[in-house]
Amino acid sequence: MNAQGEIPSFNGDEKAKATDFANYFCAYSQIYHQKSMLSDHQRMAAYHSAILGNQDVFRDKVVMDIGTGSGILSVWAAQAGARKVYAIEYTDMAKHAEKVMKANGVDHIVTVLQTAVEDVKLPIESDRLLVEEDGTERCVDIIISEWMGYMLLRESMMDSVIHARDRFLKQKTGLMFPSHTTLLLAPITDEEERKHAATDFSNAMADWNDFEQTTNTMYGVDMSILAPDYEREQKEYYMLSSRWTELPPEAVLAEPAVIKRYDMMTCTLQQAKGLFASDPESSFDFEIEGSKVQGPVSGFSGWFTADFCSRTDHGGVDAPKLHHPAFLSTGPENGYTHWGQQTFYFLSSIPTMKGETTRISGGIEMTRTKDNSRLYNCRFSYSSSRRKSDEPKDGAVLMKSGVIENVYQIP
Amino acid sequence: MNAQGEIPSFNGDEKAKATDFANYFCAYSQIYHQKSMLSDHQRMAAYHSAILGNQDVFRDKVVMDIGTGSGILSVWAAQAGARKVYAIEYTDMAKHAEKVMKANGVDHIVTVLQTAVEDVKLPIESDRLLVEEDGTERCVDIIISEWMGYMLLRESMMDSVIHARDRFLKQKTGLMFPSHTTLLLAPITDEEERKHAATDFSNAMADWNDFEQTTNTMYGVDMSILAPDYEREQKEYYMLSSRWTELPPEAVLAEPAVIKRYDMMTCTLQQAKGLFASDPESSFDFEIEGSKVQGPVSGFSGWFTADFCSRTDHGGVDAPKLHHPAFLSTGPENGYTHWGQQTFYFLSSIPTMKGETTRISGGIEMTRTKDNSRLYNCRFSYSSSRRKSDEPKDGAVLMKSGVIENVYQIP
Repeated sequence: MNAQGEIPSFNGDEKAKATDFANYFCAYSQIYHQKSMLSDHQRMAAYHSAILGNQDVFRDKVVMDIGTGSGILSVWAAQAGARKVYAIEYTDMAKHAEKVMKANGVDHIVTVLQTAVEDVKLPIESDRLLVEEDGTERCVDIIISEWMGYMLLRESMMDSVIHARDRFLKQKTGLMFPSHTTLLLAPITDEEERKHAATDFSNAMADWNDFEQTTNTMYGVDMSILAPDYEREQKEYYMLSSRWTELPPEAVLAEPAVIKRYDMMTCTLQQAKGLFASDPESSFDFEIEGSKVQGPVSGFSGWFTADFCSRTDHGGVDAPKLHHPAFLSTGPENGYTHWGQQTFYFLSSIPTMKGETTRISGGIEMTRTKDNSRLYNCRFSYSSSRRKSDEPKDGAVLMKSGVIENVYQIP
Repeated sequence: MNAQGEIPSFNGDEKAKATDFANYFCAYSQIYHQKSMLSDHQRMAAYHSAILGNQDVFRDKVVMDIGTGSGILSVWAAQAGARKVYAIEYTDMAKHAEKVMKANGVDHIVTVLQTAVEDVKLPIESDRLLVEEDGTERCVDIIISEWMGYMLLRESMMDSVIHARDRFLKQKTGLMFPSHTTLLLAPITDEEERKHAATDFSNAMADWNDFEQTTNTMYGVDMSILAPDYEREQKEYYMLSSRWTELPPEAVLAEPAVIKRYDMMTCTLQQAKGLFASDPESSFDFEIEGSKVQGPVSGFSGWFTADFCSRTDHGGVDAPKLHHPAFLSTGPENGYTHWGQQTFYFLSSIPTMKGETTRISGGIEMTRTKDNSRLYNCRFSYSSSRRKSDEPKDGAVLMKSGVIENVYQIP
């Protein structure tokens, strides 16, 4: 519906916007879903430290909370001394957020606005407006938002945050919470889950053969022409879809690669769209020492980190400093988060050998799907080689694979 | 989005139509999903008998297959001697159906049209048009369609079939496959599943208490105000949602009641909308003899049957007769179908006693939900009483409950 990968709420396609909103916001209107996010202690502790650990920057400020849900970040912003908090929530969860504000005695500070952030019009009350050099009027000192999805970008909510930043946030002194986000990728071992997927796939194909025969003999219709399409469909479902995993630290076989780093003050809508082959960061070159790891390479795994720290962009030299930076990691080193890691299992694993180093180099592209601009496909293109571990990085190669290329969907 | 319960494709709301189509047709574009319907042998055998057992009525006729999916009903219609088959399919499954027609050598008879049936324009080729008394031109002799959903009406596809009938089917000689459909309801026993749901619900509430305390002590936010809303949400999810069940015949505690009967030749869009308290059929009066059943009443269960037989309406006296009627039941007496039965578990069971007869009388309403006109809510209102089994039906009552009323969603 949207080949350019733009969120329909911004590109003026009202029919697509209606479909997008109906699908996207659905889950977030359940308290159950809110509760599961509020029970993610890595997530909670990071935002709590970021906000309540930096009360000096919140004191007397105007804050915007994008996608407040049941409202906890707004309560914290008020507790941290904000003068005014605009809590934006599209779903009916906004009604619950209002109750939470009252129950926590901050409803005189927090105004819950049930709307999409792109439809917000500020100032609403006695906001102290700042006229920027470019003539626009800004009233927001701090934008807080928990917008991150699987592989950071899934759900494409970053677009809404960028839009709001560019309309409301004071350019020289404004702060973004989080301030920086990073997408990481690493080769991992997890043969049990990989083989499980492969078994499910081959069982599905065995089922098909049964079905094809029965339909032919019992009902006189030949369905064999659909076998290749069914195989592709099932392969995409079982093998070429990433999976939510909670990996143990030892599953990570090499130093994770930074695939993308976003400065939330300066990143653009174009950058939010995905990872492109032209991005220098989107390539990787992993070195796996066979003597140090257990098991073959089962796939790649991706996750993100988020920083809450002082501005690092040129325009932000006069912005308030965060004396107590906070940090959120959703990586395997850190234990459970509701995001987990997205793991892309290989169709066949890459062996590792004692005394040998396996090198996997290639690149990742991550683009919005044609049908839904909140969902992504990941294209991996890589080759592997092996050398004696005492050889230098570009030393004699024992074995080298051809280039492997696969596109995975992130469900 | 659609308070009147009209399918958006018919009421001209283009935004709602886009959302509806995106959501509704999604699953049907997977071969996997088609395969599961094609592996339902009750379903397959009924349609196969109906079509290939009545080749005399199909010979040289123009057939329309609404929602052909991978196309099997159209292949059968062609095999039964139809002159022309229009196979209508909205999703990309239409492309697969075309391949199936070629592979089965019937592509000269079957024309696959990838469109919504309301956008079909006939005649397309050399259809023999019949000008009706009302001046409309009709070219279709037989409409075949497998449009039935859970509790018959879910998915609201019956609307599309009625629309197509009223535009294309020859009024005096046209046939509908199925010709009649019936919705049935019975009291059932299944305490294991009912208690399972109740346990899930109480576990969810225990979780909430944990969560509420942690959020308060660790993060300084009081969420207790949301407890009643959470409880309602979880109760709706666990207890007030019907469940797909495959009940054994002995779970049925009384003669099933016919809740609604549709003559597919004469039923109206208004009737397709649901069951209303004003329908005389929508009331029930079950008699459960305690000596003949095992276990208490755990809930109501609903299912449908479909008939493929001769027309019974006044206008159809000249229509071809079906000499070999066929029948499909999705009830517990008949074994597995992919529809199963929808079971509405009581919040507390109703006991049965040896030597006593439990009578449950009341009514059911079934209406489209506000947010999605393809989904339904069921309102049950009933009371129960007990008498000695040797007392007459309106004899002395040992115990009588108050009126119990609950609204269930059909997920």
